[in-house]
Amino acid sequence: MSSQPDNTQPGAVAVYCGSSTGTHQEFATAAQSVGKSLAVANRPLVYGGGSKGIMGIVSGACLENGGKVTGIVPYAMVTAGGEGEKTQNNITVHLNEVGREKTETIVVASMHERKVEMAKRSEAFVGLPGGFGTFEEVLEVTTWTQLGIHKKPVILVNVLSFWEPLRQLVDSSIAYGFIKPISKEIIVFVDGPANHEEHAGFDWGSAVLRAI
Amino acid sequence: MSSQPDNTQPGAVAVYCGSSTGTHQEFATAAQSVGKSLAVANRPLVYGGGSKGIMGIVSGACLENGGKVTGIVPYAMVTAGGEGEKTQNNITVHLNEVGREKTETIVVASMHERKVEMAKRSEAFVGLPGGFGTFEEVLEVTTWTQLGIHKKPVILVNVLSFWEPLRQLVDSSIAYGFIKPISKEIIVFVDGPANHEEHAGFDWGSAVLRAI
Ligand SMILES: [Mg+2]
Repeated sequence: MSSQPDNTQPGAVAVYCGSSTGTHQEFATAAQSVGKSLAVANRPLVYGGGSKGIMGIVSGACLENGGKVTGIVPYAMVTAGGEGEKTQNNITVHLNEVGREKTETIVVASMHERKVEMAKRSEAFVGLPGGFGTFEEVLEVTTWTQLGIHKKPVILVNVLSFWEPLRQLVDSSIAYGFIKPISKEIIVFVDGPANHEEHAGFDWGSAVLRAI
Repeated sequence: MSSQPDNTQPGAVAVYCGSSTGTHQEFATAAQSVGKSLAVANRPLVYGGGSKGIMGIVSGACLENGGKVTGIVPYAMVTAGGEGEKTQNNITVHLNEVGREKTETIVVASMHERKVEMAKRSEAFVGLPGGFGTFEEVLEVTTWTQLGIHKKPVILVNVLSFWEPLRQLVDSSIAYGFIKPISKEIIVFVDGPANHEEHAGFDWGSAVLRAI
């Protein structure tokens, strides 16, 4: 045990994900697992700032376990009352709304500034399931790594094989000569068990931390 | 025949694509077809400004057929001597370098400004094969349509089924509840003939124009 200041404090992790909960409990469970693991590993969570859907779950789980959470929110979204929840369903979600006021919120001018700010504050990027916005965010930080703007890994949580088509897109684009084979390494897919029935109980958070 | 000024001049089309040529002649042929069709339809081409790979082919074909071409180039890329070509191969490409000086070049401050400028100047977006940057650009304009920032179609040229995995990603994200079914309509896939052997001779340009 050292009394020295901790200079090896692990860096923050940006999480990109949907503002919907999705149709399958496994998505919510994976988000909770990731949020909790970040807290336990003392890694701050940086995210889009919403309290709904997967966004709400991952941030809630992090807060609930004593983690530090920073939400980066475009000004227009603050005035509009937040990110809209796009689907409704019967997924059971425990959101610790009592702790939510501990979230640090950074208000930025635009969607673009949000992405820049999230990337700047983080040393790794994690993609949980989401929609077009999530796809775009994950691919933009991948592009920035490819261009050498930063050198940070992109980790996709492949729960229920959600990201499998993106892996296929990348693989075929490499085969067709549009992406260099070496760039394949930028994105790490965390696949979990081969059997989807084991995805509900899998420790996605630990697998993500190992992949960083 | 009217002597009135033409107020129905068709709008510009932004094309996103790779700075590599790809491994298959069909990609180059499709790019030439799209560039030529834009010129013939009197629709200005707006693109990333490179002279290499698919970028060079689509813009060269447009210029060669008397079309108007505007390249939007980030300042850092101008000083670095342009977009690097990432692959080399035996694809036969006819680039009309004689006409290339007719390209209008707009220099912008950043990669982000390039995307904003390309989108602002265009009334439709076309994705030809490319890599991470192309994926990100296509998905960003899709996100902007979804958010209501603009209302412009995204057309993906599915030559040799290049974009098929993206269709699967979107379809499964809809099925999993992260994208609204109505948003599926934002992206139109131009598939061409079911038989890939007919892709080399297919009129991709006309099919793209019909999809706008
Ligand atoms: Mg983007």
